[in-house]
Amino acid sequence: MFYTDGKLQYPVRVEKADPLFARALQQAIGGIEGEIRVAMQYFFQACGARGNSKFRDMLMNTATEELGHIEMLATAVALNLEGAPLSEKEAVAADPVSSMVLGGINMKNILSSGLSAMPVDSDGVPFDMSHVYASGNIAADMTANVAAEATGRTLAVRLYNMTNDAGMKDMLSFLIARDTMHQNQWLAALEELGGPQGVFPIPNSFPQDLENQEFSYAFLGFQEAGVEPLAGRWSEGESIDGKGRFAAMPMKPLGQKPDLGPARPDSGAQTEQM
Amino acid sequence: MFYTDGKLQYPVRVEKADPLFARALQQAIGGIEGEIRVAMQYFFQACGARGNSKFRDMLMNTATEELGHIEMLATAVALNLEGAPLSEKEAVAADPVSSMVLGGINMKNILSSGLSAMPVDSDGVPFDMSHVYASGNIAADMTANVAAEATGRTLAVRLYNMTNDAGMKDMLSFLIARDTMHQNQWLAALEELGGPQGVFPIPNSFPQDLENQEFSYAFLGFQEAGVEPLAGRWSEGESIDGKGRFAAMPMKPLGQKPDLGPARPDSGAQTEQM
Amino acid sequence: MFYTDGKLQYPVRVEKADPLFARALQQAIGGIEGEIRVAMQYFFQACGARGNSKFRDMLMNTATEELGHIEMLATAVALNLEGAPLSEKEAVAADPVSSMVLGGINMKNILSSGLSAMPVDSDGVPFDMSHVYASGNIAADMTANVAAEATGRTLAVRLYNMTNDAGMKDMLSFLIARDTMHQNQWLAALEELGGPQGVFPIPNSFPQDLENQEFSYAFLGFQEAGVEPLAGRWSEGESIDGKGRFAAMPMKPLGQKPDLGPARPDSGAQTEQM
Amino acid sequence: MFYTDGKLQYPVRVEKADPLFARALQQAIGGIEGEIRVAMQYFFQACGARGNSKFRDMLMNTATEELGHIEMLATAVALNLEGAPLSEKEAVAADPVSSMVLGGINMKNILSSGLSAMPVDSDGVPFDMSHVYASGNIAADMTANVAAEATGRTLAVRLYNMTNDAGMKDMLSFLIARDTMHQNQWLAALEELGGPQGVFPIPNSFPQDLENQEFSYAFLGFQEAGVEPLAGRWSEGESIDGKGRFAAMPMKPLGQKPDLGPARPDSGAQTEQM
Amino acid sequence: MFYTDGKLQYPVRVEKADPLFARALQQAIGGIEGEIRVAMQYFFQACGARGNSKFRDMLMNTATEELGHIEMLATAVALNLEGAPLSEKEAVAADPVSSMVLGGINMKNILSSGLSAMPVDSDGVPFDMSHVYASGNIAADMTANVAAEATGRTLAVRLYNMTNDAGMKDMLSFLIARDTMHQNQWLAALEELGGPQGVFPIPNSFPQDLENQEFSYAFLGFQEAGVEPLAGRWSEGESIDGKGRFAAMPMKPLGQKPDLGPARPDSGAQTEQM
Amino acid sequence: MFYTDGKLQYPVRVEKADPLFARALQQAIGGIEGEIRVAMQYFFQACGARGNSKFRDMLMNTATEELGHIEMLATAVALNLEGAPLSEKEAVAADPVSSMVLGGINMKNILSSGLSAMPVDSDGVPFDMSHVYASGNIAADMTANVAAEATGRTLAVRLYNMTNDAGMKDMLSFLIARDTMHQNQWLAALEELGGPQGVFPIPNSFPQDLENQEFSYAFLGFQEAGVEPLAGRWSEGESIDGKGRFAAMPMKPLGQKPDLGPARPDSGAQTEQM
Repeated sequence: MFYTDGKLQYPVRVEKADPLFARALQQAIGGIEGEIRVAMQYFFQACGARGNSKFRDMLMNTATEELGHIEMLATAVALNLEGAPLSEKEAVAADPVSSMVLGGINMKNILSSGLSAMPVDSDGVPFDMSHVYASGNIAADMTANVAAEATGRTLAVRLYNMTNDAGMKDMLSFLIARDTMHQNQWLAALEELGGPQGVFPIPNSFPQDLENQEFSYAFLGFQEAGVEPLAGRWSEGESIDGKGRFAAMPMKPLGQKPDLGPARPDSGAQTEQM
Repeated sequence: MFYTDGKLQYPVRVEKADPLFARALQQAIGGIEGEIRVAMQYFFQACGARGNSKFRDMLMNTATEELGHIEMLATAVALNLEGAPLSEKEAVAADPVSSMVLGGINMKNILSSGLSAMPVDSDGVPFDMSHVYASGNIAADMTANVAAEATGRTLAVRLYNMTNDAGMKDMLSFLIARDTMHQNQWLAALEELGGPQGVFPIPNSFPQDLENQEFSYAFLGFQEAGVEPLAGRWSEGESIDGKGRFAAMPMKPLGQKPDLGPARPDSGAQTEQM
Repeated sequence: MFYTDGKLQYPVRVEKADPLFARALQQAIGGIEGEIRVAMQYFFQACGARGNSKFRDMLMNTATEELGHIEMLATAVALNLEGAPLSEKEAVAADPVSSMVLGGINMKNILSSGLSAMPVDSDGVPFDMSHVYASGNIAADMTANVAAEATGRTLAVRLYNMTNDAGMKDMLSFLIARDTMHQNQWLAALEELGGPQGVFPIPNSFPQDLENQEFSYAFLGFQEAGVEPLAGRWSEGESIDGKGRFAAMPMKPLGQKPDLGPARPDSGAQTEQM
Repeated sequence: MFYTDGKLQYPVRVEKADPLFARALQQAIGGIEGEIRVAMQYFFQACGARGNSKFRDMLMNTATEELGHIEMLATAVALNLEGAPLSEKEAVAADPVSSMVLGGINMKNILSSGLSAMPVDSDGVPFDMSHVYASGNIAADMTANVAAEATGRTLAVRLYNMTNDAGMKDMLSFLIARDTMHQNQWLAALEELGGPQGVFPIPNSFPQDLENQEFSYAFLGFQEAGVEPLAGRWSEGESIDGKGRFAAMPMKPLGQKPDLGPARPDSGAQTEQM
Repeated sequence: MFYTDGKLQYPVRVEKADPLFARALQQAIGGIEGEIRVAMQYFFQACGARGNSKFRDMLMNTATEELGHIEMLATAVALNLEGAPLSEKEAVAADPVSSMVLGGINMKNILSSGLSAMPVDSDGVPFDMSHVYASGNIAADMTANVAAEATGRTLAVRLYNMTNDAGMKDMLSFLIARDTMHQNQWLAALEELGGPQGVFPIPNSFPQDLENQEFSYAFLGFQEAGVEPLAGRWSEGESIDGKGRFAAMPMKPLGQKPDLGPARPDSGAQTEQM
Repeated sequence: MFYTDGKLQYPVRVEKADPLFARALQQAIGGIEGEIRVAMQYFFQACGARGNSKFRDMLMNTATEELGHIEMLATAVALNLEGAPLSEKEAVAADPVSSMVLGGINMKNILSSGLSAMPVDSDGVPFDMSHVYASGNIAADMTANVAAEATGRTLAVRLYNMTNDAGMKDMLSFLIARDTMHQNQWLAALEELGGPQGVFPIPNSFPQDLENQEFSYAFLGFQEAGVEPLAGRWSEGESIDGKGRFAAMPMKPLGQKPDLGPARPDSGAQTEQM
């Protein structure tokens, strides 16, 4: 169960309303690297966590933090939209630089939400909850979370670079710091789960002698004939999971040319296929 | 540029056509953990890779492998669908267990594709390319790839457990092995990029003195009043990126109660809001 | 069955082609508040209406009107797009204000439809028919229709405020009037169905003694500890449905801490979860 | 900012795991009438609320409640999935009735989430945040909320009717009661905002003398020639908003036959169109 | 503008309600080959048709017919759903064959629409209006329409084969006939537009001397090294458009190895990329 | 199985980076007329092709070509994005025409992909694999391919007209030529399958005496009462498939007024419907 106190986790201040930056901030709300995604991802991972309950609790704790980040960003979007033109007349009257605003923002931020934030990305595409990765495997979930925070911090850095507003830079310096922590937090959880050699390959509950081990640590090359696979850490030495040694080889097809045979009479195919 | 020889990377054999398993296999084609996703993800990461070209080449090489996995799985789906009833009469005539088939498969595998594979998941939902994570940051991309292969191998293991067909188990033992390699491959790339202490926090090009460092390594608690944050590897000791020390503290709101003020006259709001 | 006479329900006149306004008008076609939505919503509600056939007939009648509104707006979009630049050269040659056009419109209105309307919103996102609310409960449907026309008229008002074109203002003054009527029409239907006290709670066919009546008229507070729920019409006096009295109380969790136990051996979880 | 105590708002008890009912419950999580939708809808309405802050506070308060409902339902889904077969062998071994389970559930609840809840509907379709209606007009928002709770309670009633499990019926009797309250709560808010005559037509800030008032209270008939419009409360008497009188008339086209003229030379049209 | 008479274009009769067939019929409503698609596709093509108005008129005429087909199919779905179980108890009480029903249908047809049709496909996926192909090129539109009716008739044939119900077979025999006509109708329109040699390549308004004509009629082979392209009508003889002669050759890359160079300093890339 | 040589099929050269044109090019990657679509469409058609294997081989061959086109366009997008501003300061400092850039491009091309291509269209909407038409009927597939290449070439022509960059015009002159060939290629395949009279109506395996032949070649009119259907090639003469003669007649409803009767007691309907 959840509670709220109606206050923001961190101050949200906009010195000069900038509707174009409001559009950019939408990516941090409804983009695939955004806050709805991590809030809901940690939430559903928590709800489906089996085994040691400490992971469930930690996940739900941080999901709760991320809800507050959506709130912060939605406030920032609304404040930045204050200066948006509501009519073309307003836009045309302004200087050329600001006249690009009406065409440059997500129009739905005016037409659909009346100068407020929406759960859409910076091009107005709504967030789709299929991006909530919650696999039922706690280690796979942690890797998904590291990835989410890596792209999330990359986005926040790009937003930081894009704006000159001191208030917005301050808010983003906080969110970037939280992403630093969260990257470390999920990496720490992977360490608790056994570190690279204990965790990988995920899922570690599948007996590796059931997989075709000839191909478990081989870097296969798919270059045109006669070209060797590209060398790198992935082509020699011990594997990262400590359970094999990397090798490299060009791949040749081991399988047949597929042949599905003729179509069944009542299958809606063309007569020539039967 | 690409080439094909029309043969399968690994043999695809179905001993007894099983339309319900065809539905399950669709998840490995068009699910978010599936082969279209990794093929296209590595493809777009390659196309956008800046800096050392070895990453581009390795990514495109493995994208090319994954295209062949889609081909294998699509063949497996079509072969398993061979036994699907095309009419309810066929279904009813069979025994109760197999009569569940018509209701149990993705109907589009009959109605739309005529007993062939589709780029949809196991519930018939089409794959959406927003799941192609290609961030322009090579390290963030690698974390996304580890996550993709972690959920991918988890899916392949679940499929392996679900079927009794020796042909299908053989094909899956190969795909599981490839997922083992690919998890290791992207981890190896992260090692080439500097390992945890060189890579994180991603992006490592952002000067950390610009982030609000008070919160960079703090595990914040969002429990009801008076409850301490949950202890774990994430709450004490050196951070995984080697650039700070973990701490823990309950969070209190630092920001204001948001107030957007009255609505603008022409904004389509209700008079009472103005 | 349907007929057409190829004429518009109301004149559509554009004095000066304005491609940026064409983009805005797209929201009224393919936005979630747009005309495709209401046309299809009333259509499917009609097709699924059980009981007194007058509701079916009225719904299909107004669905038929809304089809004509799509036609009007599609014509308006095409006429406004007439002035769009087809090349960057054309754009650059123009003055700064109009040069923002090529970047400011939905590019698909040039590239995909060749200067014609599309079933997309003002940011180019295609309409998705999941927004067709048709519940099989005639009263729930009426509330969805009131909501659709409320957001629809809000959108039309915002469009009216955005343009200076006399032809467009005339067209919108008609559509706004129709939205006024349709809001009233669905409210009138709710009155025919019994008014607030006869209709609510929807569905009125469920025996209220089967619901947990302790919570049926309670405004529950989810503020931090010690803060009382916010007072308002919703916290005291007779309930709007006339079947209870409002009360207010802070909420405390009544349920357990969820515990799903260990993961099943073959479920693809990590060994540590089992 | 938000807090959690890790406990459920109301007890969630499953007497006999029923994977098919888990599928049905998914509709209450990720369906368009489900809890993610109302949680996020009230959340974004709160973040965008301008004017009297009591509406913002009430909306965020109830958004916070709905987050706890997602948590309850996600727990219920996971508990019901406990009995799902992980392999076809398990399914076949069971009796015919339960053998329909593997084909009858959302396969992603096994393959993607490992027997846990997902943010998808009962057919496995992910929730799409475009269903979050937050218009910037507080009264329009309230009508959208009444509609959401009307379809939400209808769904909960259908789920109640579908199951025989005493634990599930108890949980649903609570959720149904909350939907009763929430329908009344949003109706009460509309009363605070002025009641039907003060609120409608939404937005009430648009001067009605700018709309084409000839059509503001007319029920227009679109039947084949010579058929009168269907009579009802909507065709005579005072309008519900108290600002006009209903009338009825068959509609005739007032507009022209649209003619876009020839295509522009460089527009990618066929020569015959130019 | 449109009219309706409330009657069906052709009788819809269901001898024995069959909820599983209702699911299959949903594909003909909301599938990509379904009636919503063609209705809306012809509608938007009509609205955007420039040049000779006879194409606009014919398109809108047939769009109007297709609206009536949605109505017929929605009625058929509702009638077939009459026999669906509303509770698991009802399902279990029935014989094994019919007990598969509850798991076999789109659950939303019960839970969301209360035994009525929805604008979704046979797996419950909502129709997405991006499938409305309306290109602004009248000939391209006609090819899209031939394709739509080809897949549409294939679907109708599969539905015909799937059912034993005489009423449903009668309805489908009508719809199949209409698809026969519509395939011919769009082919006839292409003949009016000039036939293969006048119409192709589409758009015929682009001067072919601006294309790289070395590759305009070459069947390029992408087989592994040393393998000749597959011979066929496409590799020799006059081209279908009458403007060239087919040839065949293996393809070799003509372009460079792409190199994007280093990443820009503020672009959020990793330091190692700069 | 597939191979790559890391080189581009054709040179990709950008003389002057143009971020706005990068946005336009995205339509050719992730638009419904774009290269992902044809690559995946031919790929899945190949995988599901039954009957004569030459069609499978030809389809997979050309799918392989199209993969290389995605690679070319993704390179072109990245090169054109090189000049995009990463901050508003950069934009403002530039001249008014280029200052429209930041607002005019897909912001995700900066924020999500770091100046690289994405699988989205020119308005930032991700490609959705439901656009992969692969029907299991080889002739229906060929019509879908003609349509895809017709809209694809129309798009490429519009892009050619939009840019002044000699490098981009050269690349597009190649892609336009390939679309010319591919239109002819699929038409040639239809000729191999029997030409119009052998192929149509699709599927040709359905006995036409089972369709309601009274309506198989009738152009039905849905104009208001008393208006004759529009005459054209589709209303008289031999049908294109050679199996009937066109006729024309106004349509009258042959079916009943639909009546679903009262709602079932436990169906969640309103009491008034029962």
